[in-house]
Amino acid sequence: MAQPVVTTRILRRLLKSGAHFRAEKLLERIHPADLGPLLADLTPDEIRIVIDLLFKHHRAATMLRELPPELLPDIIEAISDQRMAEVLNRLEMDDMLELVDAIPEDRRVGVIEHLPVARREELRHAELYPPRSAGRAMTTNFSALDEKMSAQEAIDSLRAVGLDASDAILYLYVVDELQRLTGVVPIRRLVTAQPETPVRELAIREMLSTPPDADQEEVAQLVARYDLLAIPVTDVDGTMLGVITVDDVIDVITEEATQDIYNLAGLSEEDRVFTSARVSIRKRLPWMLVNLCTAFSAGAVVGLFTGTIEQMVGLAIFLPVVAGVGGNGGIQTLTVITRAIALGEIEFSSGIRAVGKEMWVGLVVGATAGLISGGIAFLLHGNIYMGLVLLLAMMVTMVTASLVGAAVPLMLKALNQDPALGSGILVTFAADALGFFSFLGIATLLLDRLV
Amino acid sequence: MAQPVVTTRILRRLLKSGAHFRAEKLLERIHPADLGPLLADLTPDEIRIVIDLLFKHHRAATMLRELPPELLPDIIEAISDQRMAEVLNRLEMDDMLELVDAIPEDRRVGVIEHLPVARREELRHAELYPPRSAGRAMTTNFSALDEKMSAQEAIDSLRAVGLDASDAILYLYVVDELQRLTGVVPIRRLVTAQPETPVRELAIREMLSTPPDADQEEVAQLVARYDLLAIPVTDVDGTMLGVITVDDVIDVITEEATQDIYNLAGLSEEDRVFTSARVSIRKRLPWMLVNLCTAFSAGAVVGLFTGTIEQMVGLAIFLPVVAGVGGNGGIQTLTVITRAIALGEIEFSSGIRAVGKEMWVGLVVGATAGLISGGIAFLLHGNIYMGLVLLLAMMVTMVTASLVGAAVPLMLKALNQDPALGSGILVTFAADALGFFSFLGIATLLLDRLV
Repeated sequence: MAQPVVTTRILRRLLKSGAHFRAEKLLERIHPADLGPLLADLTPDEIRIVIDLLFKHHRAATMLRELPPELLPDIIEAISDQRMAEVLNRLEMDDMLELVDAIPEDRRVGVIEHLPVARREELRHAELYPPRSAGRAMTTNFSALDEKMSAQEAIDSLRAVGLDASDAILYLYVVDELQRLTGVVPIRRLVTAQPETPVRELAIREMLSTPPDADQEEVAQLVARYDLLAIPVTDVDGTMLGVITVDDVIDVITEEATQDIYNLAGLSEEDRVFTSARVSIRKRLPWMLVNLCTAFSAGAVVGLFTGTIEQMVGLAIFLPVVAGVGGNGGIQTLTVITRAIALGEIEFSSGIRAVGKEMWVGLVVGATAGLISGGIAFLLHGNIYMGLVLLLAMMVTMVTASLVGAAVPLMLKALNQDPALGSGILVTFAADALGFFSFLGIATLLLDRLV
Repeated sequence: MAQPVVTTRILRRLLKSGAHFRAEKLLERIHPADLGPLLADLTPDEIRIVIDLLFKHHRAATMLRELPPELLPDIIEAISDQRMAEVLNRLEMDDMLELVDAIPEDRRVGVIEHLPVARREELRHAELYPPRSAGRAMTTNFSALDEKMSAQEAIDSLRAVGLDASDAILYLYVVDELQRLTGVVPIRRLVTAQPETPVRELAIREMLSTPPDADQEEVAQLVARYDLLAIPVTDVDGTMLGVITVDDVIDVITEEATQDIYNLAGLSEEDRVFTSARVSIRKRLPWMLVNLCTAFSAGAVVGLFTGTIEQMVGLAIFLPVVAGVGGNGGIQTLTVITRAIALGEIEFSSGIRAVGKEMWVGLVVGATAGLISGGIAFLLHGNIYMGLVLLLAMMVTMVTASLVGAAVPLMLKALNQDPALGSGILVTFAADALGFFSFLGIATLLLDRLV
């Protein structure tokens, strides 16, 4: 596997000068995983030529499998239905499902029609599993061994598959006559076993497995936690359905981390760095509307106190301070809690303890921030009550922002919703609205001592 | 491997009633990875007993290796220097390094003194690699094969290691007489090879490797990108130093994702959900001070325009709207860009294109938000200029916030700094300060048409 040293520029020059044969040679040396970033920089016409060249070498399928999702729409557009079906047919079920999802709905039926009947059936079956489930992430391509085999027979069966098969076979799955999983044999044990040993004796009997409707993130957590290389997927009877391998688990972990970070900012998953501006704008507008509503609501809180501000316009300076510090504190709490949920470190019971801790931390940090900013306010206005108003307002705001930041994701999780989605905007809103309300409210109460 | 069904409550009851033998039996059935969450709920005294029981079964080392870092300080405190050394001695180098880092500095020398000389030397050597480098993450425990061996000899050498050795050996590394890496043999190939085949012929010659001083995140990206199960670490001569396996890569990916999310919120890595409130407070205070400075600066911008606000107090209502929408937009851009950097999807050259795209998206979303909120302002005040002020201010704020959100992480990356650290607070500050300045500034210019 060569290091990716080839730049788009060389490829472009070759394509432009019509040196397709040399471009072909160049493409051959590029790992499929490196083709994506390369294609991102080409024009639609150039992409068309590259795809033709890749099809000549039957490399289009691996290339499409490795492509970042935001590049798929344009590239799929350049491929005929027939060819798309050809590509799909070469992929394993989990990659096939992902690619099918990327085909525009109006073309999907047309593409699937070109698939062989058996594959079409298989696809229809796999599509019954819920999105983001183990059933969709698994490969159905695994090595099952009959319980009664000897180590030598197992090795022979592996040899029959041929050396071309994936070098990444790590476990062999032992099944009974009803295809129920009874154990796994790490391939290393097969190497060192005496030829006549029954595979039954080589197998690990106590192993983790997962049902096909399990959430892929939970499966990834299992694999990560117990340092597994693959996990079998079995149905209620224990029948072996497929395997989720560690490379898919890495993809799931990366994808879920992106989703977590994105949810905190209210971003849609499709909104990536090389997504077209048009798509990014369309994805961000609804969130902006939500944001506008909460921002106007926070503004309305200020509106309740225009009378107070009119009497003492200097108060306006402190509004961003209370809201800013409160918002930052709330987001910190939210981040700690959502990350803990994502990593499976927190259950609802220990969640309550976490809420308490976060509120306490919020109170102490808020009080410190309040003392400092209250001190500054006192120095600016020479009025001790001004400092007191800030201190109280900051404590109230920080504690509440911490409560919202900790409790909202835990409640969303308990309701089986995504814990991060929308929490960020809610925390900011709480900090803004409550910061303004407590600061201006307390100031109104003490107004005759302030002015 | 049993499913983690055992709860803290049962363990506690056994410990309290002095049924240590039953507690022992219970602990034996728990996977080391499940012990961490369990210990988190115990009192210091209970932890002491559990650790004693684990030491009896030589399971303390694996338990400490699997423990979430925030729990380590309290537990290490309960273990004597001698026992700590015993634990360290049982660990592989990468785990040993991590644990040594968790020992309080004043105890470190004392603990290390109890290590055997050879291990002490090894540790000293490994500590020369920079933090978060491949050299620190690698295990030095790998299977090297002499080039001249046959497949059968390789199998025999594996057998000599014994069946107790890790089932997770996936690749065998072929080295020449100078211990230089010349190829890798996937273990599957060894199983199906004819006994007399030289391992040289089974080996993959073109393979990726990494130098020991490479950043662990970049190594993880390589492994993830090319779906590897392990990557060899070699020095400049090509001498084999160690191996980074996929389970360590998963840990790196998870850790780096946490760091990215945390950096955006200005959180320290040690500040986790079960970190003591005292430590969390200490970690959050400095960031709060930074936040207080930026918030006061934003407030000072408002202070520039108290005269304008005094003449038209209704303007104050719109301050949170401009700043809120701008801040949200800027954070969205920042999130997209830092995530792309973290996943290695962006280079500086394509970064410039990304900045342009984000500014354009910011302009369009900002103009839309400006039209809507300008419309609302017009309805509230019956003054078209009021709407115009909001529209202009929002466009300026959104474009600038997008510029800051995109350019700052790219510049930090180019300077080899962490792209997310501090970017969030800078973006919020830019949105606040510029939102207030543009809104109140334009309002001041048009004041006689507004009132």
